[in-house]
Amino acid sequence: MAFYLGLLHYPVYNKRGEIIASAITNLDLHDLARLAKTYGAKRFYVINPLRDQQELAKRICRHWLRGYGARYNADRQKAMSLVSVVPTLESCMAEIQGGEGERPTLLATDARKDKRQEISYDLAREIVNSNRVVMVLFGTAWGIAKEVIGQADYLLEPIIGVSDYNHLSVRTAAAITLDRLFSPAHKALKR
Amino acid sequence: MAFYLGLLHYPVYNKRGEIIASAITNLDLHDLARLAKTYGAKRFYVINPLRDQQELAKRICRHWLRGYGARYNADRQKAMSLVSVVPTLESCMAEIQGGEGERPTLLATDARKDKRQEISYDLAREIVNSNRVVMVLFGTAWGIAKEVIGQADYLLEPIIGVSDYNHLSVRTAAAITLDRLFSPAHKALKR
Repeated sequence: MAFYLGLLHYPVYNKRGEIIASAITNLDLHDLARLAKTYGAKRFYVINPLRDQQELAKRICRHWLRGYGARYNADRQKAMSLVSVVPTLESCMAEIQGGEGERPTLLATDARKDKRQEISYDLAREIVNSNRVVMVLFGTAWGIAKEVIGQADYLLEPIIGVSDYNHLSVRTAAAITLDRLFSPAHKALKR
Repeated sequence: MAFYLGLLHYPVYNKRGEIIASAITNLDLHDLARLAKTYGAKRFYVINPLRDQQELAKRICRHWLRGYGARYNADRQKAMSLVSVVPTLESCMAEIQGGEGERPTLLATDARKDKRQEISYDLAREIVNSNRVVMVLFGTAWGIAKEVIGQADYLLEPIIGVSDYNHLSVRTAAAITLDRLFSPAHKALKR
């Protein structure tokens, strides 16, 4: 089992349902890098086609890897060392394939329900705990564009709490999803 | 069952283990308010003794409740309407007691292990699903001061992923904790 984490900034939707390239959010990088380290991701891909946004993401990482941040917080350094900034989903899928020798299974996430395509957390846990290489992909802004979800091997069911309110940040949604998929605590509950 | 969410800014530790009052982080308010709405908290208390920080928190809330934010994003408005800004943990415990007619059971969280006091998620799920009123408390900065944890009725075990790295943000830690405690998905796994 090998798993990779991806945060997609293009193509995603804005509030009006238009396709956009979203901006880098500093705390998304920190929170998802720390989640990646906690749950054993091999890399965390920050996917953004805009040059200035790539530079911003790389500058944030440099601060924590080699700048003042590295001396200030070594735990953060360990997490940020997992980040790779890439222009497209295809480029990171190809990079993973190059390293692993197989194309990763793409598991997309979305807050919207799509009964035709989505799989349960139980099935997703079986997939990520098999011997496959898996990319778990989260979207920024108002979510991953349908064209990308349509190309994914699987779409994970949305996170539902105790009400029908499902408007979590990508940071907290990613935390819940990775915990449900990879936490040994949940394995103990299930078996 | 009634549950409240609290985010403590004093007394908490800084990096050097000194007691401080931490600053308000904008995205903590947003992320925890949305989690509170998702998992059915009755209120989300932002606990900070500093007047200027209370004003900042209230200004952020006003923007989303009555300002431009309310028109821009009604989903965010629903979440932010759960926020109360209070000066001390005691003041919010007293407010809850006034409304509920009983003093809430205080369930504290910490990334550090403390075998003498901590309880498992299984036991914590039983507590929050009983007929008690419960306050689930998270700390900012380097965590809740020991004096507060010592006064808590229970301390929840730390979140452990697949390694010994446990340096999550309070946003993502709160997400995982609330999902483990309140998600119907986990009930289904357990029973």
